[in-house]
Amino acid sequence: MDGNGRDEDRVENGFNPEEEEKYGKNNNKEVKGREMSVEQIFEGQEVPSWRKQLTMRAFVVSFVLSILFSFIVMKLNLTTGIIPSLNVSAGLLGFFFVKTWTKMLEKSGLLKQPFTRQENTVIQTCVVASSGIAFSGGFGSYLFGMSERIANQSGDNGGFKNPSLGWIIGFLFVVSFLGLFSVVPLRKIMVIDFKLTYPSGTATAHLINSFHTPQGAKLAKKQVKTLGKFFSFSFLWGFFQWFFTAADNCGFVNFPTFGLKAYKNKFYFDFSATYVGVGMICPYIINISLLLGGILSWGLMWPIIETRKGDWFPANLPSTNMHGLQGYKVFIAIAMILGDGLYNFLKVLSRTLTALFYQVRGRSALPIANQPSLDTSNKLSYDDQCRTQLFLKDQIPTWFSIAGYVTIAVVSTIVLPHLFHELKWYYILVIYVSAPTLAFCNAYGCGLTDWSLASTYGKLAIFTIGAWAGSHGGVLAGLAACGVMMNIVSTASDLMQDFKTGYLTLASPRSMFISQVIGTAMGCIVSPCVFWLFYKAFDDLGLPDSQYPAPFATVYRNMSALGVKGFSALPKNCLLLCYVFFGAAISINLIKDMLGKKWGSFVPFPMAMAIPFYLGPYFAIDMCVGSLILFVWEKLNKAKADAFAPAVASGLICGDGIWTLPSSILALAGVKPPICMKFLSRATNGRVDTFLGS
Amino acid sequence: MDGNGRDEDRVENGFNPEEEEKYGKNNNKEVKGREMSVEQIFEGQEVPSWRKQLTMRAFVVSFVLSILFSFIVMKLNLTTGIIPSLNVSAGLLGFFFVKTWTKMLEKSGLLKQPFTRQENTVIQTCVVASSGIAFSGGFGSYLFGMSERIANQSGDNGGFKNPSLGWIIGFLFVVSFLGLFSVVPLRKIMVIDFKLTYPSGTATAHLINSFHTPQGAKLAKKQVKTLGKFFSFSFLWGFFQWFFTAADNCGFVNFPTFGLKAYKNKFYFDFSATYVGVGMICPYIINISLLLGGILSWGLMWPIIETRKGDWFPANLPSTNMHGLQGYKVFIAIAMILGDGLYNFLKVLSRTLTALFYQVRGRSALPIANQPSLDTSNKLSYDDQCRTQLFLKDQIPTWFSIAGYVTIAVVSTIVLPHLFHELKWYYILVIYVSAPTLAFCNAYGCGLTDWSLASTYGKLAIFTIGAWAGSHGGVLAGLAACGVMMNIVSTASDLMQDFKTGYLTLASPRSMFISQVIGTAMGCIVSPCVFWLFYKAFDDLGLPDSQYPAPFATVYRNMSALGVKGFSALPKNCLLLCYVFFGAAISINLIKDMLGKKWGSFVPFPMAMAIPFYLGPYFAIDMCVGSLILFVWEKLNKAKADAFAPAVASGLICGDGIWTLPSSILALAGVKPPICMKFLSRATNGRVDTFLGS
Repeated sequence: MDGNGRDEDRVENGFNPEEEEKYGKNNNKEVKGREMSVEQIFEGQEVPSWRKQLTMRAFVVSFVLSILFSFIVMKLNLTTGIIPSLNVSAGLLGFFFVKTWTKMLEKSGLLKQPFTRQENTVIQTCVVASSGIAFSGGFGSYLFGMSERIANQSGDNGGFKNPSLGWIIGFLFVVSFLGLFSVVPLRKIMVIDFKLTYPSGTATAHLINSFHTPQGAKLAKKQVKTLGKFFSFSFLWGFFQWFFTAADNCGFVNFPTFGLKAYKNKFYFDFSATYVGVGMICPYIINISLLLGGILSWGLMWPIIETRKGDWFPANLPSTNMHGLQGYKVFIAIAMILGDGLYNFLKVLSRTLTALFYQVRGRSALPIANQPSLDTSNKLSYDDQCRTQLFLKDQIPTWFSIAGYVTIAVVSTIVLPHLFHELKWYYILVIYVSAPTLAFCNAYGCGLTDWSLASTYGKLAIFTIGAWAGSHGGVLAGLAACGVMMNIVSTASDLMQDFKTGYLTLASPRSMFISQVIGTAMGCIVSPCVFWLFYKAFDDLGLPDSQYPAPFATVYRNMSALGVKGFSALPKNCLLLCYVFFGAAISINLIKDMLGKKWGSFVPFPMAMAIPFYLGPYFAIDMCVGSLILFVWEKLNKAKADAFAPAVASGLICGDGIWTLPSSILALAGVKPPICMKFLSRATNGRVDTFLGS
Repeated sequence: MDGNGRDEDRVENGFNPEEEEKYGKNNNKEVKGREMSVEQIFEGQEVPSWRKQLTMRAFVVSFVLSILFSFIVMKLNLTTGIIPSLNVSAGLLGFFFVKTWTKMLEKSGLLKQPFTRQENTVIQTCVVASSGIAFSGGFGSYLFGMSERIANQSGDNGGFKNPSLGWIIGFLFVVSFLGLFSVVPLRKIMVIDFKLTYPSGTATAHLINSFHTPQGAKLAKKQVKTLGKFFSFSFLWGFFQWFFTAADNCGFVNFPTFGLKAYKNKFYFDFSATYVGVGMICPYIINISLLLGGILSWGLMWPIIETRKGDWFPANLPSTNMHGLQGYKVFIAIAMILGDGLYNFLKVLSRTLTALFYQVRGRSALPIANQPSLDTSNKLSYDDQCRTQLFLKDQIPTWFSIAGYVTIAVVSTIVLPHLFHELKWYYILVIYVSAPTLAFCNAYGCGLTDWSLASTYGKLAIFTIGAWAGSHGGVLAGLAACGVMMNIVSTASDLMQDFKTGYLTLASPRSMFISQVIGTAMGCIVSPCVFWLFYKAFDDLGLPDSQYPAPFATVYRNMSALGVKGFSALPKNCLLLCYVFFGAAISINLIKDMLGKKWGSFVPFPMAMAIPFYLGPYFAIDMCVGSLILFVWEKLNKAKADAFAPAVASGLICGDGIWTLPSSILALAGVKPPICMKFLSRATNGRVDTFLGS
């Protein structure tokens, strides 16, 4: 089985299109009347040189925000693996911090350099690059999948490599910069010649542009105020909840909202501000897919399979054993993820190749269903003229990028086998030879569809390198190869998005590149440290029923084991069910595409359905609550909801995310919450009262 | 000690002035431009005859609402004894029901009689009369104070008479109608000659008038919608909470919001929608007084007295014993209530007599600080002419009211000694001879100040009749006498308020009177039934730590015992503390009055401070949350808060109140909640987990 899948990637970036579309619409409204004259509005403002775009204050703010976002992304990694786009929050908060700072300086007469949209773009780029490492570093997937804890759960004998701050930072430094160099030479082709849309990058640029027009700043300030309010609420709510979690199964996160029986099947609202916020950002159909998947699995399938205990699988296994019910949960989820991934990989690849073919022959791409059409107008507007001129002014020499790529690849090829003995130098060489092509594919596909397939390419590496290495450390080799591959293709598409943003905000490609380099370097240090804090603070990190189950660590580990060992270890009928769900994932996608844009949007995403298979539907319920709030809000006041819902959602996510910082510090310091809020059935409660009374 | 106090009365009616003032302002705004022309606006509308004002639909709606409000008042009686004015809700809901009904009929062409403001007044009068019985019936005070359960807590040997549906209904029927007949002959003097303001009645009339003008109805509809929304929320919240209360100390009502130590001293937010709503209706100073009282007693005094255990009082007493800490709580509260009551009784009495003196001599009352000035203009406006004419049209002959009073008094004097053997017929005769004077005093004082002193007159009866009867059943005789007295003076002031409302809405005095009679009859049946439901459904009704502690039952019982037995039973130093707090209550009132209206309004009410002495400050915290919500709302949007806060508050109160109906039915049916939400300290939780694990 060498299927290629993609999982959290679509969830990470795949959510962008709609969210950004919302923003796009919102901004378009403002921009509409002056469609072709954005740069005329900004004409009076001088564009600073690329050196001046890289200010000290920008990087200070970026550093603060990158810590914030690393916490958030890490928490999401380790809880459900669903990571919404944080570009908007980054842009908003960056604007807020620097604007406050410059306002203060302006009042005291000390302001030397005004705050420009180019600087704002630099901050946004840097923060996204840095917090991107928290995702592509694989702390919730391949990297943590190497640990002993996950290895024990998986039950394979592929060895382990426990996380340690030293090697993780080293590993990230040698693999994270390659992607940057691999696509730099192609930026002119992608952005100017091909005119790729990069919806996320475009939307962020619109946002930044609108902030820096006078009316925009007013709206932005209101949005920031709303964000701040919900940030505080969410933070305080996290703090309040903490007091009642003296032990496992205590506190609001274990609130049996729909009764104890539903709670046992993981149907409950766990009062997580984060996931309510995530639910507000994600499109309705994603949340509904999650809920459907949860109902299908935990409401129907697992209870039925449970009744086969002793027949399909041994009755006396612990709940985390892969030969028991847990095996069904993990492998059926993997099958669905791979089926969905394979379908979409082939779809995007065929589109990429077709579009590329026409593009190279100098003709516009044929319109394909669901594909954002490319801008094919040949005459350049005033905006385009300005932007093109500035985009081409500051060049990054091709020899520089090639030299950079080769140097880092050589260093990396020498260093990596020392970190992972299972990963031979020739595996790495093969990856680095093929990587630029794949990085280009991913950057191009992302420009077309806004979907980065980074983890799909990572899984490709798992199966190919894992199979190549075989049973001699193939599991670890596969996971490590996944990391190398993912980092390259992920940063490549991120950087190209930022180039598009820079193009639209007149930021210099050089300052973009440097900002990315600095951001990546920050991320290589900040992310492992944040992970380390979680790892040390929460002893049960990675265990299925804990606060931080890190679901994708198990999934990746088992994929790798599967690639090396085959299906022999699966419990009875599991393989059959895997085939069924693999096929179902492909069929659902086919139906979705055949129904067209209008009706297809009502068909659930198989990938989203698969996540609760393993975790249970509780976070899906949170997210549906978020959806519900948004839905009602939109019914009541559409304009206000459109303008402020992203700020509310970001506030909820950020506040709860940053609370994990003090919470993990408290845990490290050995400070335990004083109270346990416990939920007992009436009968058990009677026994407990008798026990306590005596 | 024959001090006269009043307690929940000020809390019940004393809250009206400010609340009504708000409404008054609100409505005045609308009315302002046409100050002298309210009746001109309504000129086109024919005033129906008094028979036509009494429609079937009005009484059906009244009956439904009186059940609703009886539940609410009963719940409040049995939890804290704080009862906000429900006139506004009654007016609002009455309007809503009949308007919906007539709208429906109008559409189907079946409407014969349009909905008039006179009919609305009839409904409001009937509902207030009926739910008034739930208060003056003493289910939370004198009547329940006779029961065995409260007698055991009090520890006196004054005998008991357990509640039973039969005798309660009989008792209410023979005592509740006397007040009506006693003041009917005086209505012209009070309303037309003396031009007493009756702020509550006036405000309700304004409200009803504004509903029946076209713009008013629009606002009313919006208010009703808001009320409905919060009603549903509050009801569902009560329902949700229910599931988690499998045993005592379970559920949200025991949520240790500020930690377990604070919880032990009754400092916690108990998530009661009712008291958040009550807090929104009550003026800020009342809520702050409650909180201050709570901090003073449970935060300071009780913990200090607790340390004297073994010295001041025996260490091994159960917590409910009056010779222990409980004695301090109850008697210091009584002292403060009596001190405050005595001061205000003398104040209102002196004012009443002074005003009466000048009035009788044909001169207007001297303006006295804090006293609503009387309308002294001699020339009659158009409005006054209309109103006076209609008010005098339908007469109730004086012989009729005197005959009614005498007949009922005779029946009552014969029947009551059969119900309460301790209550001799000559006690009753004395009460009935003096009652009309006291009823007049109360109705007059209420017209001046909006404060009904019903329970103060009740306490007067407790001490005088109790002392007269002596140790031979004096406790029960005192409580029964209290009931007879309270019912007369309470209904007298209520009826006069309604006459004022009727005067301002052109409702006939005859229809007002009949509506009151019907409402009182309804109340005499509905209230005991509602109480019976509570009594049967909740086994621990009246116990200090239960859901329904009925605080004033204990207070009344102990007052009566005190009147009969003297201070001998009090624990050490308790009497000294009682004197201190009795004096403090008088001093605070003196300071309040001397500071004048502006600064005096910042001085807390001793009466409000005394309530949490016995109960603990948890409900004060709820009410302060309500205050806080209102405060923030007023800061954000004063106009909206003024218009909708009463609707929100009423919704919260009514929804939670009506939830007690299904909740008590569930309890009667033996359906118990399935889950216990328990709060354990970390150490206890560890023990419980070990116990449950083994």
